[in-house]
Amino acid sequence: MQSVEKAMTVLSAFHHADGPLTLTQVAERAGIDRSAAQRMIHTLRVLGYIRRDSDGNGFLPGIRLLDHTLDYLRLDPLVRLATPVLQELRTAVRERVDLSLFDNARVIYAIRLQTKRQTLNATLVGHSVPSFCTSGGWAMLSRLSPDRARAIVEASDRRPFTPHTITDVDEIMARIAQTRADGYALAISQILSGEIAAGFPIMDANGDPVAAIHIAGSLAEWTPADFVQRVVPPGQQAARAISRF
Amino acid sequence: MQSVEKAMTVLSAFHHADGPLTLTQVAERAGIDRSAAQRMIHTLRVLGYIRRDSDGNGFLPGIRLLDHTLDYLRLDPLVRLATPVLQELRTAVRERVDLSLFDNARVIYAIRLQTKRQTLNATLVGHSVPSFCTSGGWAMLSRLSPDRARAIVEASDRRPFTPHTITDVDEIMARIAQTRADGYALAISQILSGEIAAGFPIMDANGDPVAAIHIAGSLAEWTPADFVQRVVPPGQQAARAISRF
Repeated sequence: MQSVEKAMTVLSAFHHADGPLTLTQVAERAGIDRSAAQRMIHTLRVLGYIRRDSDGNGFLPGIRLLDHTLDYLRLDPLVRLATPVLQELRTAVRERVDLSLFDNARVIYAIRLQTKRQTLNATLVGHSVPSFCTSGGWAMLSRLSPDRARAIVEASDRRPFTPHTITDVDEIMARIAQTRADGYALAISQILSGEIAAGFPIMDANGDPVAAIHIAGSLAEWTPADFVQRVVPPGQQAARAISRF
Repeated sequence: MQSVEKAMTVLSAFHHADGPLTLTQVAERAGIDRSAAQRMIHTLRVLGYIRRDSDGNGFLPGIRLLDHTLDYLRLDPLVRLATPVLQELRTAVRERVDLSLFDNARVIYAIRLQTKRQTLNATLVGHSVPSFCTSGGWAMLSRLSPDRARAIVEASDRRPFTPHTITDVDEIMARIAQTRADGYALAISQILSGEIAAGFPIMDANGDPVAAIHIAGSLAEWTPADFVQRVVPPGQQAARAISRF
């Protein structure tokens, strides 16, 4: 393994961590030996990509990573164009509005415009959710060929998030077909019980789906019919304004 | 230069770019030769940290960077603790609320809770502003020794953002002293004309400033006295709730 790849593997050791990692944990998760991990951590610490936890017991990602986050977000032509459009949409619908980017089996949030009801992870840029059971995922999969969409769904880890999460491939494909017919996706209690979300696909100049707008509300406040009537027209308009950016 | 450092230099070539970079531009900005840049870009593309611009004329940061953003944000003990506190604060003051992290001459935004009045950069995680002329910067500098604060101010690029930006070192030090006495900073039209912002320092277990809360409003809607009366008590309370996390 060449050293750049090794460095990125060391940084990626934090992907499923739930706290600071010790040297041994970094080495194990990166699949490299302890002394290689130590040298790599040293190099990455000097550069600011890894830091010591304030308790001194382990390591955490370093602040320099946020500079690259900014580069990604401010240089991406889609994010640039979408930001003011999503802000207007957020003002119009007064519900949570997100932009997610297509990454096959998952969608990654790049813009998050919150409301006051939020859990921690639900507000973080970079958070990803599976494509197979989210409004944005269905929206994007509906714009792929059914064969390619099915291949992504079949290859997905389809563990349910709630008792209502649809995990059967044929049932998911039926939702995707419905999304294709409607032009938007409607996901109810798929990731979070009691959440209703509408998803709208965004296409690039080749007509390929690259992103989705998500609008999410609570079933405590909305019937599905009212939610659709209220958020689908402005959501579709926003997605059209950004598509083929 | 070893290859990990070179890889990070290539990624950092995008820090001041205002669009996709060509191979030649990456090489120039990274200070390496074209063939080294080409090999490094290839490696980073395979790993997902660089991608081709959709026009095919240049390169952009890759989506894998967002995974590391998430790691930074969700694992940082301060960000973790601050998120729900800032959400409550945002609900209470109904103005823009940010958490920024101390990085000497600059403060880097890690949490952004928007209102509807926003410009693009003002919503992006990873955006940084100078410490010498921001409410959060003054708040953090006020908790350093005056000598260390002065050294940071003196070493700063003190180009003004608005006609009101204070650039004189002694005048800035007077604002920092005022901030120390008051326990909060008040910055008027320093970064953006017509913006009023209050900053509150957050200390770690050693009493060192590590972050700040910013609350920002518009002079079109607030007199400075009303703004202070309205936002300072909840801002101070929030900063106390997070300090020594």
